[in-house]
Amino acid sequence: MKVAKFGGSSVASAAQFRKVADIVSSDIERRIVVVSAPGKRYKDDVKVTDMLIQLAEQVVAGEPHEETMEAIVKRYADIANELGLEADGFLAELVDDLQSKISAYRSEPPRLFDAIKASGEDHNARLMALYLQDCGLEASYVSPLEAGIIVTDEPGNAQVLPESYDKLKQLRERRGVLVIPGFFGYSRSGHIVTFPRGGSDITGSIVAAGVKADVYENFTDVDSIYCVNPSIVADARKLKEITYREMRELSYSGFSVFHDEALEPVYRAGIPVCVKNTNNPAAPGTWIVAKRNHIDEPVAGIASDTGFCSINISKYLMNREIGFGRRVLQILEDEGISYEHTPSGIDNMSVILRADQLADGKDERILARIREELAVDEVTIEYGLALIMVVGEGMEKTIGMAAKATTALANANINLEMINQGSSEVSMMFGVKEEVVNEAVRALYNAYFQQATVNHLS
Amino acid sequence: MKVAKFGGSSVASAAQFRKVADIVSSDIERRIVVVSAPGKRYKDDVKVTDMLIQLAEQVVAGEPHEETMEAIVKRYADIANELGLEADGFLAELVDDLQSKISAYRSEPPRLFDAIKASGEDHNARLMALYLQDCGLEASYVSPLEAGIIVTDEPGNAQVLPESYDKLKQLRERRGVLVIPGFFGYSRSGHIVTFPRGGSDITGSIVAAGVKADVYENFTDVDSIYCVNPSIVADARKLKEITYREMRELSYSGFSVFHDEALEPVYRAGIPVCVKNTNNPAAPGTWIVAKRNHIDEPVAGIASDTGFCSINISKYLMNREIGFGRRVLQILEDEGISYEHTPSGIDNMSVILRADQLADGKDERILARIREELAVDEVTIEYGLALIMVVGEGMEKTIGMAAKATTALANANINLEMINQGSSEVSMMFGVKEEVVNEAVRALYNAYFQQATVNHLS
Repeated sequence: MKVAKFGGSSVASAAQFRKVADIVSSDIERRIVVVSAPGKRYKDDVKVTDMLIQLAEQVVAGEPHEETMEAIVKRYADIANELGLEADGFLAELVDDLQSKISAYRSEPPRLFDAIKASGEDHNARLMALYLQDCGLEASYVSPLEAGIIVTDEPGNAQVLPESYDKLKQLRERRGVLVIPGFFGYSRSGHIVTFPRGGSDITGSIVAAGVKADVYENFTDVDSIYCVNPSIVADARKLKEITYREMRELSYSGFSVFHDEALEPVYRAGIPVCVKNTNNPAAPGTWIVAKRNHIDEPVAGIASDTGFCSINISKYLMNREIGFGRRVLQILEDEGISYEHTPSGIDNMSVILRADQLADGKDERILARIREELAVDEVTIEYGLALIMVVGEGMEKTIGMAAKATTALANANINLEMINQGSSEVSMMFGVKEEVVNEAVRALYNAYFQQATVNHLS
Repeated sequence: MKVAKFGGSSVASAAQFRKVADIVSSDIERRIVVVSAPGKRYKDDVKVTDMLIQLAEQVVAGEPHEETMEAIVKRYADIANELGLEADGFLAELVDDLQSKISAYRSEPPRLFDAIKASGEDHNARLMALYLQDCGLEASYVSPLEAGIIVTDEPGNAQVLPESYDKLKQLRERRGVLVIPGFFGYSRSGHIVTFPRGGSDITGSIVAAGVKADVYENFTDVDSIYCVNPSIVADARKLKEITYREMRELSYSGFSVFHDEALEPVYRAGIPVCVKNTNNPAAPGTWIVAKRNHIDEPVAGIASDTGFCSINISKYLMNREIGFGRRVLQILEDEGISYEHTPSGIDNMSVILRADQLADGKDERILARIREELAVDEVTIEYGLALIMVVGEGMEKTIGMAAKATTALANANINLEMINQGSSEVSMMFGVKEEVVNEAVRALYNAYFQQATVNHLS
């Protein structure tokens, strides 16, 4: 049994709906389909989700919203018409649904936003079910409520509750193809609550884990996952397979293919993920698995992200003070700041964190607190830091991994602001100035991938 | 004005006393002399301090201690006799002093130990003053009380109090050579309190800072400080100069030449230190300074230490939990554990600490607390870790420093358990298994020092 999730670009138009139907019909194991809301059909197109957000904003602001409503309805009507579906009933229900949500939640903006946003996926799933039936498949729309996706009641940040999985398991007994909208679940009190961004991936992953699927297929618009951001490295290699841990480390630090939170349910259930291209389903895609078959190549990928800063603290005989580090972290916690790493020397400690957390004078307040409460000799903030993560399951046991990286960076004349290796078995982290991060990524790519062939499609 | 401190082996015998007198007489600037207790004269000799500890133990245990007392007196008598000094009065005072301390503190062992141990330095300073007078110098013994070394009242762990420095400054007005015993001060309530190990170095440093000496000379039994432990690397290079920061990082991690706490007073006062050899005073020694003149060579030294362990914690989505790291450190703090470093990955955190702190079942208790209170996926302790510190003021700005180190280690087939670089501007830390630490140090020495000549004596 396979759960196949189709992203926004895969379900953006009638032409894309036809590809999805072909893909679903071509494999009898594809029994559950999870869909996003219609995405962009061309570069400057507007996603349905963004139109829905605009609609909710207009309602909250008391502005006229008829035009937006019409534009939304037109997107679905265009798809239905081009597919030759009799969709008057469907479209009338769509309008009714949006209007009843507007009435119900007008005075509760967070709930309004969640309910309106979620309808993008919800109606697309209904339309997909209609189309699959029209294609002669036994298909039915299943709402997240019926499926049993029960979540915490925090608008825009739903977390799945454990009882969902037992309920979802019962979907195995259902006949035909089930079409479930992604992106949202229902709270115990019956409210629609959306997942954080990447939410349809989360739904697919939860459903795959719940029904104990053999595979979770994630259809998108690329043939496979690249080992490095292809906008930084031209002709970047494609990955045949990658482990959950590798994917998580990479997606955390700049890989946008797969939201890291979406991986958890399938990771815990041990279900392999296959990332495939709706527009080229014959391509093998990239497998995300517990254990790679091809471990000849220790590094799986390289990711980078900018926008970090470093709070650098120095105090003579710091290491004699029991509790010093804990007190630094306590101050950050008090201020609601989360941090990434805390490299330390004998008399020094640095805290690496995302710089956007220090806006609105928070930086000055934190500096003042550290200076006064911890009586440090010096504390400064260095902005403009980028982190690069080199990720691979084989790294820990391969001698010379760090040498390869540091030599490549030295040859590229790049100064290393920071190295952090040793806690994670699968990654090595380097800090460089933002200005040189792409150059650094290219140097690392050349060092690790220019001779390697085994784990990569040619 | 120079403050010259002479270590235990430099004042262990009459022959050594003669060398000290020659050194003191040869430079009119050597106005203050700080002495240790008589150290070893040959490999299996017993230090006077160790004899004094034995004496105190016997007193506390209610055992006979006459023999030990005699042996102690004999050590001083031998020196005095061989120097041709009329010392009956001195020796009678020595016995009186020890006996009165035994009577005064018999029921307070911590005070007894401090008072008895301190007498080793105290009487050696008195004897040195007598001998310098005998040599025709205007010399006088000055007790730490008279000098103004006022300390906290924690037996065995004295910390100097700020008021000492004003008092010490008045020593500048005194005539002749002043001989001050190292290793102890007086609390505000008039008790003798000793410094932690390395205590005579601390006295010398405090006195040098107090009198605003031009130089603090530290006489020991080696020509200079080596850039690496000479018992690991044969023919290790000697250092012409090294900065306070470099010395501190090196002495912390295995360099035994200079106790790191002893450096603080001269560091804060900006007084250069010269480490010299009592047995070869013509050798230039090693200068410890604020700023090196020879900065052509970015690395000053390499130190290593064993006996570390790593608590390795993993938890899926750890980085989403604000306060996770702080709570780990809080548990350690509750258990009175101090740590060295906390490298972290996305879902991992390690805490590097000295393993001897986890004895007596503390390891199990800490593992249980982390497991239960933080609901982690896995927590283990890895023993047998060694840390290697590569230290140098020029490192931060020199591209390729990390590459040189990691390449050398890879070529020596050594796996890197950990790299920590970025917080301290002057050091880079590597973690390896204890079994390979000496090999790793040799590989790093060869990489950094085999071509270098500028900052090293040939």
